[in-house]
Amino acid sequence: MNIIVQKYGGTSVGSPERIKAVASRIKTNVEKGHSVVVVVSAMGKTTDSLVELVNSITKNPDKREMDMLLSTGEQVSISLLAMALHEIKIDAISYTGSQIKVLTDGNFANAKIVSISTDKIMSSLQQKKVVIVAGFQGIDEEENITTLGRGGSDTSAVALAAVLQSRDCEIYTDVDGVYTADPRIVSEPKKLKEISYDEMLELARLGAKVLHSRSIEFAKKYNVRLHVRSSFNYEEGTIVMPREEMMEKFVISGVTSKKDQAKITIRNIPDRPGIAAEVFHELAENKILVDMIVQSTGHDGKASISFTVLNTDLDKALKVCEDIKTKLKATAVDNKKDIAIVSAVGVGMISSYGVASRMFRILSEHNINIEMISTSEIGISCVIDNLYAELAVKVIHKEFLEE
Amino acid sequence: MNIIVQKYGGTSVGSPERIKAVASRIKTNVEKGHSVVVVVSAMGKTTDSLVELVNSITKNPDKREMDMLLSTGEQVSISLLAMALHEIKIDAISYTGSQIKVLTDGNFANAKIVSISTDKIMSSLQQKKVVIVAGFQGIDEEENITTLGRGGSDTSAVALAAVLQSRDCEIYTDVDGVYTADPRIVSEPKKLKEISYDEMLELARLGAKVLHSRSIEFAKKYNVRLHVRSSFNYEEGTIVMPREEMMEKFVISGVTSKKDQAKITIRNIPDRPGIAAEVFHELAENKILVDMIVQSTGHDGKASISFTVLNTDLDKALKVCEDIKTKLKATAVDNKKDIAIVSAVGVGMISSYGVASRMFRILSEHNINIEMISTSEIGISCVIDNLYAELAVKVIHKEFLEE
Repeated sequence: MNIIVQKYGGTSVGSPERIKAVASRIKTNVEKGHSVVVVVSAMGKTTDSLVELVNSITKNPDKREMDMLLSTGEQVSISLLAMALHEIKIDAISYTGSQIKVLTDGNFANAKIVSISTDKIMSSLQQKKVVIVAGFQGIDEEENITTLGRGGSDTSAVALAAVLQSRDCEIYTDVDGVYTADPRIVSEPKKLKEISYDEMLELARLGAKVLHSRSIEFAKKYNVRLHVRSSFNYEEGTIVMPREEMMEKFVISGVTSKKDQAKITIRNIPDRPGIAAEVFHELAENKILVDMIVQSTGHDGKASISFTVLNTDLDKALKVCEDIKTKLKATAVDNKKDIAIVSAVGVGMISSYGVASRMFRILSEHNINIEMISTSEIGISCVIDNLYAELAVKVIHKEFLEE
Repeated sequence: MNIIVQKYGGTSVGSPERIKAVASRIKTNVEKGHSVVVVVSAMGKTTDSLVELVNSITKNPDKREMDMLLSTGEQVSISLLAMALHEIKIDAISYTGSQIKVLTDGNFANAKIVSISTDKIMSSLQQKKVVIVAGFQGIDEEENITTLGRGGSDTSAVALAAVLQSRDCEIYTDVDGVYTADPRIVSEPKKLKEISYDEMLELARLGAKVLHSRSIEFAKKYNVRLHVRSSFNYEEGTIVMPREEMMEKFVISGVTSKKDQAKITIRNIPDRPGIAAEVFHELAENKILVDMIVQSTGHDGKASISFTVLNTDLDKALKVCEDIKTKLKATAVDNKKDIAIVSAVGVGMISSYGVASRMFRILSEHNINIEMISTSEIGISCVIDNLYAELAVKVIHKEFLEE
């Protein structure tokens, strides 16, 4: 059986008209002889209006009850999509997470999938039915309804592809693939035909919203190819796949920027094993999200640690750092608001010399001062002033991706 | 454990404010030491807006998918009510029909309850939690979601009271009890303190909308007292209970009218066993709802059958009757549109002489012509002209209930 798993996001099923459009897209796949399993999110604005109801009742909703509530959104869209398929003479059946036993841990609002039963899905597929599954939701061992957190429906789709041993999972969204840069910054970004799991993970971490990290990790683990494409047209999108199978490997596959960050430096900490752990443990305890981290050790045996946080977390973070300073006998805590992290990501970097130096040169040619640098196997990130974020993206993109 | 089952209808939970009001009403019961199980309907207009979505997708929704869709309405209200209780420091947990295994037959849109598991409910009650259950819904043996049809949440509540061996089930609605007549017709109808299951069933059959027949039958079968009362005030409502336990038995406990009916008479059918069955089988096959039936046999061995249908079904019914006439060798089919059925219901009739004659006299005193009469142990119904329906209700109510 040739099973395709397709996932349609909230915008793709945002109205009865959109649901009908999705139904006829599914029909073309059925007519080609495919067995289709469809994962659907809640209709565009459903979640917002449910949250609005909650807000007029309580400021601290219980997480179990919140999952009970929010999971209704997908249940509405699966039944409507099934009806839309029936209307165009395609046999279809919808299932909630509970019905196909999407077993998760009991971590409400952010549950992890443990297992999925394929019995009902397979028997429905054998009856030539399109199977429509509610994304984003599961049940824990006590049959409480759970939800999978941000990007949850993508994760549902990838998990289904994995258990159904389907190598292909199509993620339909409102953009038609993964681009080399944000089109609001770069006038003609390129759509990538292929990208590796690691690059996509790096881009997600750096702010690209097209796929959520967890679904990419899942796809990588179970070797599922993700085809990210638009439900509004029939163009090919971008395939997220294992690095080894990629046909062309660009040196750089994406340039991103994250603005409104702040940089903190704790200076001259007597260096001994475990100081970084201590610093970031304290920050995590205080629920401060730390992004880029750089540690340097001087020849005097003292270390300095620099890291970035959100502008909005700066005051809270500084308070924590003052305590850390005293505790670790550091000499000073410096900070700077309104900075941006500009990054270039690409698997080709590994085998390509001088990418970093080319990036630094191009920034300096445009008088952009680099305040902090961090590199990984597949990415280079520079901290610069907020004001230069768009310019930096433009010139890096031009240097590596436009010629 | 002293368990109270309460059911709140759509109007009672129609807005966040109403849900909060229901929560504080539940709180007072909890503070009195009761264990409370609450059954909730969908918020006022939820079902309508879901149906609207369906209408823009298909004219013939699949029943399974329709139940999948509509059952989300109750799931929304149970979670919101749980949150509202948490907000006022009352521990509470919500359950869908699936979670507490409300097992039904597979008759989508009109399923019958087969069994309910009490395990989760009892253990939550033992943990001093208010248990909130989604009314109107269940699952069949294959775990498909089913709904119970009109008045389904009342049936859920009564069934829960039965399995939890609670003798009392409070049905909260937007009226504060069962009245002796429609207040739009009679200026000062009396609220009944008590009414028997049979009278309530008869009133429901005759058009009273306060409770649906199935929930009353269920309550009668399992000996559950139904307390019908308003969620908008704290007044005592009406208790529906076994006839034997009633303190006062009025001769007449209710006067009702059903307008816009039509009467059909098939004349001079050669009388032999089974002709009535044949006539009404044909009508049922054609999905025509028949209400009142009167059969008379003349001394010539010929029978006439009169019955009422809805005005809107008259043409279809007449077509069927013409076929029956030929088949059964009857001589004629007469009909009359725009008639009303006026009824008086009361368990006291059994032991009270002359109720029927008093009713006929009072109608004749007001020049209201009676075209057809049918009596049962606890009710008398007369067919009269539509125009006199309200007048008839008024004068019968006055004769028996106002002095």
